[in-house]
Amino acid sequence: MSEFDLIARLQSALGRGRKDCVVGIGDDAAVIDVNGTRLASAVDTMVEGVHFLPGTSAADLGWKALAVNLSDLAAMGATPQWALLALSGPQLSADWIDQFTAGWNALAEPHRVQLIGGDTCRGPALSISVTVIGRLGANALLRSGAQIGDDLYLSGSVGDAAAGLALLQEKIPGAGSEAQRQALRTRLHRPQPRCALGVALSAKASAAIDVSDGLLADAGHLLRASGCAATLELDQLPVSSALAAVVAADQQRRQYMLNGGDDYELLYCAAPAARDAIASIAAETATPVQRIGRVHEGPPGMLYADGQPLQAKGWDHFR
Amino acid sequence: MSEFDLIARLQSALGRGRKDCVVGIGDDAAVIDVNGTRLASAVDTMVEGVHFLPGTSAADLGWKALAVNLSDLAAMGATPQWALLALSGPQLSADWIDQFTAGWNALAEPHRVQLIGGDTCRGPALSISVTVIGRLGANALLRSGAQIGDDLYLSGSVGDAAAGLALLQEKIPGAGSEAQRQALRTRLHRPQPRCALGVALSAKASAAIDVSDGLLADAGHLLRASGCAATLELDQLPVSSALAAVVAADQQRRQYMLNGGDDYELLYCAAPAARDAIASIAAETATPVQRIGRVHEGPPGMLYADGQPLQAKGWDHFR
Repeated sequence: MSEFDLIARLQSALGRGRKDCVVGIGDDAAVIDVNGTRLASAVDTMVEGVHFLPGTSAADLGWKALAVNLSDLAAMGATPQWALLALSGPQLSADWIDQFTAGWNALAEPHRVQLIGGDTCRGPALSISVTVIGRLGANALLRSGAQIGDDLYLSGSVGDAAAGLALLQEKIPGAGSEAQRQALRTRLHRPQPRCALGVALSAKASAAIDVSDGLLADAGHLLRASGCAATLELDQLPVSSALAAVVAADQQRRQYMLNGGDDYELLYCAAPAARDAIASIAAETATPVQRIGRVHEGPPGMLYADGQPLQAKGWDHFR
Repeated sequence: MSEFDLIARLQSALGRGRKDCVVGIGDDAAVIDVNGTRLASAVDTMVEGVHFLPGTSAADLGWKALAVNLSDLAAMGATPQWALLALSGPQLSADWIDQFTAGWNALAEPHRVQLIGGDTCRGPALSISVTVIGRLGANALLRSGAQIGDDLYLSGSVGDAAAGLALLQEKIPGAGSEAQRQALRTRLHRPQPRCALGVALSAKASAAIDVSDGLLADAGHLLRASGCAATLELDQLPVSSALAAVVAADQQRRQYMLNGGDDYELLYCAAPAARDAIASIAAETATPVQRIGRVHEGPPGMLYADGQPLQAKGWDHFR
């Protein structure tokens, strides 16, 4: 049974009943109402051998465990505030914790995220589960808000993290310089959640999702939730200079870009009338963004390029 | 390195920086301020082979994973509202999830707790991490509020869960009837968080903690946080009829009562002037409570009985 089926089952059995839950399970984060103030909250777990390679540094894990959760809040347009951490592993030493907290803090401090709950215990494999809570402004960015005719945008670039993982696993030799190959590995280990962009977009975008499972898979999630289809302009997809240097412009690179996970960019929609506003937001938040397609009628969740349907492949880190 | 040392390290490195965090790591739950409304939040993880025996039913795990977290909120005087769940395991089938959610809902529905976030993934051992968020009234019940001269109270009875675990592990033969032995196993698998009592106490008690690590250990935590010592009247400790029937009144039974974990009762303090109010709260919430000792000056965290110091043994489920 897939993760999505299991979560749907949890949602169906346990995810109802309170009017102060404005958005429940199924978006990037839940939205709850606290006497008129709206909070967003999400949980994400990383398990050794499933989400990260054994031997990944504690500092990188500290950064990434928080980053993937901040990315969920970014996709809702929420400002992160608090986090809770459940850590289990066979050997959690003081030294490991010190490195983990250093990596975490490198991201938490600029975002002013405070850890308010912690639980540690023994367990057979290293497992890191983080819950984040953030504050929303007037609008939450949902997956379900895309409108027919909207532009489809992507922040930054995709494919780098998958290429970085392939380098670590020695699946590809990798051209380019060592600095360029390192840049790809850093994209994998130290994703930059698009928090400022997400908050700014919450007033102008119609829908958003963060790209964690792969561009096609996550675009499919957004479009299914919105009941729309979309056409991508594949030649508009931005390619980072590192990816361009390390992986040749072939099918493999395209696979990384379309189906590679772990990039934690934002994919979002906005009306064509908002193009200037979207450009201003990109400039003000110093975030590269690219218009990569258009939302239209069609089978919900379907994606096309050059008139042909595109097939998403689920992102399973180590299969 | 002990769990307490690791958490202290997390708190010291990551647990500071926001004024809207009223109480951080170190109490039963954190307290955050949301535009004047106070929320309490806690996280707790259960790992197979560490916190529960392999083969424990999915329904019991669903109940208990939520119960231990509601108990943390009860100890703060907070009303539970929302929960997030991170599940990992080697085989999470639809059938297992259905049983898990049935057990969870048996507790969640009467408490009106809605699941607002869920994450599932593969992992080498079954691991269940739950974050809860609840609402506080005017006062949070802290561990640090005990005053010299306060009475010390305990809800329900302790030792049952440890005896139930010993029965499951066939460490003791167990006298009494099968129904009585089953009652002890049920205390282990289906703890009843003292939510109504905790909320009612928040206006009258000076300090509280939930008894998860053992009566002496948790009393020590409360007293250390309050800078006090206490004397227990051991002959006042309530013994459930099931424990009385199954385990003889010997050293073993006393060990279960003083150092056994997993009972999830509330241990709390109140001024002698509040005795009538405490009795009324017990009656109104239909919760058995017993005055079991008195807070006094002394080395912080020290416990005495009959003028002799008592030694807490940490509760490690399966050692």
